Amino acid sequence: MSGSSVLSSILERIGNADPGAMRRAEARQMTLTKPPGSLGRLEDISVRLAGMFGTDQPVIRGKSVIVAAGDHGVVAQGVTGYPQAVTAQMVMNFLAGGAAISAMARLGGVHQVVVDAGVAADLPHHPDLRILRIGHGTADISRGPAMSRDQAVRCLEAGAGLATEVAAMGADLIATGDMGIGNTTSSSAITAAMTGRSPHETTGEGTGRTPAELQRKAAVVSRALKVNAPDREDPIGVLRKVGGFEIGVLAGVVLGAAAARRAVVLDGFISGAAALIAHGLSPAAGDYMIASHRSAETGHRAVLSHLGLEPLLDLGMRLGEGTGAVLAMPVIEAAAACLSGMATFAEAGVADRSEDVDPSGGNS
Amino acid sequence: MSGSSVLSSILERIGNADPGAMRRAEARQMTLTKPPGSLGRLEDISVRLAGMFGTDQPVIRGKSVIVAAGDHGVVAQGVTGYPQAVTAQMVMNFLAGGAAISAMARLGGVHQVVVDAGVAADLPHHPDLRILRIGHGTADISRGPAMSRDQAVRCLEAGAGLATEVAAMGADLIATGDMGIGNTTSSSAITAAMTGRSPHETTGEGTGRTPAELQRKAAVVSRALKVNAPDREDPIGVLRKVGGFEIGVLAGVVLGAAAARRAVVLDGFISGAAALIAHGLSPAAGDYMIASHRSAETGHRAVLSHLGLEPLLDLGMRLGEGTGAVLAMPVIEAAAACLSGMATFAEAGVADRSEDVDPSGGNS
Repeated sequence: MSGSSVLSSILERIGNADPGAMRRAEARQMTLTKPPGSLGRLEDISVRLAGMFGTDQPVIRGKSVIVAAGDHGVVAQGVTGYPQAVTAQMVMNFLAGGAAISAMARLGGVHQVVVDAGVAADLPHHPDLRILRIGHGTADISRGPAMSRDQAVRCLEAGAGLATEVAAMGADLIATGDMGIGNTTSSSAITAAMTGRSPHETTGEGTGRTPAELQRKAAVVSRALKVNAPDREDPIGVLRKVGGFEIGVLAGVVLGAAAARRAVVLDGFISGAAALIAHGLSPAAGDYMIASHRSAETGHRAVLSHLGLEPLLDLGMRLGEGTGAVLAMPVIEAAAACLSGMATFAEAGVADRSEDVDPSGGNS
Repeated sequence: MSGSSVLSSILERIGNADPGAMRRAEARQMTLTKPPGSLGRLEDISVRLAGMFGTDQPVIRGKSVIVAAGDHGVVAQGVTGYPQAVTAQMVMNFLAGGAAISAMARLGGVHQVVVDAGVAADLPHHPDLRILRIGHGTADISRGPAMSRDQAVRCLEAGAGLATEVAAMGADLIATGDMGIGNTTSSSAITAAMTGRSPHETTGEGTGRTPAELQRKAAVVSRALKVNAPDREDPIGVLRKVGGFEIGVLAGVVLGAAAARRAVVLDGFISGAAALIAHGLSPAAGDYMIASHRSAETGHRAVLSHLGLEPLLDLGMRLGEGTGAVLAMPVIEAAAACLSGMATFAEAGVADRSEDVDPSGGNS
């Protein structure tokens, strides 16, 4: 299906989460010094981490965010208010530490990996910039395919390679981040193609956009789907036809993280579109996905629904860059820390619920 | 009104947040390298922090959680499934580092202050235990007042003193945490008294509680209100009549934090009941409150609505101990770090939105 032995071997290495570790984690949760269920979704997340890592006492050693940047030929259709040059300028801002993701990564002790997946401009040399440059911006998806099939496969393989690398360096949480002027248009098209929703459901208003602008953007997405006729049974084809270089790299990051049995923390809509591609290639990769936040971008709802993921945060954010994903990392770490670090009733000498009362959870 | 010169002087020191710093912070947000509004609620929180700290570049140096424990005579009415001894046992678990709050505080670099506000049992000596012991558990609120007026004032003053102390040690975020078997019953009564809601609206199901048990608990709350007739115009009287020692101490923590112009990060329902008392004594203290999470406990909704607070997290948690508050601290820190640490468009050499398109926010 992939037509590449490297990609095939990555896909073959992705196995489902460990059901035995999950059962043991659930049992351990019941013995910890708190009313059962009182940590809410932290308990669910802790059990999922147990399944990913294959242990009922999961530990998170390192954290990375992979921020992939790429440009989009579809900006020629006037779908965005920022000039294309901003993609390259923001890459330099990531490297200089001035962007939101940089401030958050610094705060949270998260290793930031900045990747030129396919920026249109030539970027100045920088020791911390990873240059993949699968292309110099995609072609205009409203007029034909974004890239060649070979480029789509190279995106996926390169992203998987990056995930493998940060996993080997000790990252147990790997966040996805994006930068690319025009990439919500591509993500809307991918989401429509992979979920079967209409472009009107997958194309976002963006706060302050006029109804006319939104109509134009949705029309561009519709045209991209009509011209390219992407087939959800061929996710590489969807990426090739209506995707973006950074989106392909992030789809590869998801696959590589899953193959390495690490948790991949998805940011918002663009990362979600990448996850749809990855999920299409390997449904088992879904076991390693954690949805960090609910983006204010409309199409993200369709993504989360299709992947069956419930986000941890809902703070009205819509910046991308991996900001939502890095923001959710402490919640995921807390989930692991409670499961692995709390005392049991027996260890702490705390009386468990009295026997004469109906079992219940909650504040006392 | 307070009848205590110490408490009066604390209340006099509480001033509103600084509107000038908030305006400057709002203006600064518009210059940072992101679409305006794209960090969602982080931007609102950052502006609030600016107002609390009186600077448009707020910095969070230290973080503390004050976990106050107390016992409740109302447990004699069979309102809870755990034996009263658990309060003291959990205090020892906090000190040993085995509780959820301990695991989370350790993870997040949050200084944990454990306080015996009024536990029924005598606790063994421990170097890290702060002993206030305003009483040995409250009296049964369904039969009369919980404590004397003098004790209520002493709770508030002691809590304010603790907040002053941790603020002086560098804590810019001060979280409230509680432990007390029976304290949701007291909190339901306080919430009903301070908000005017009926006990049925302020008394929680708790997962798994049978309808009969919930009915009994609501009836106990109704009886406590009838027997004591608390008057919301006299918040100290409400605390005295249907409160708890740990709740009074936490109300004092809120007041002390506000007087010191620090952000007080409220945990769930019990902390919320404490905040209602504090807000009743000083509406300006509301400027310093951040609601960390929406508790699964029903009555918390009435608390948040009355205080006009929207919580940051909604993860189905209902443990108390300050767990929700400590979990939200990294979100608050990220808000400050972005406002204070991000580059402006001018500094980063990033082009701002092009002029020919309607101003809008959002993913590009």
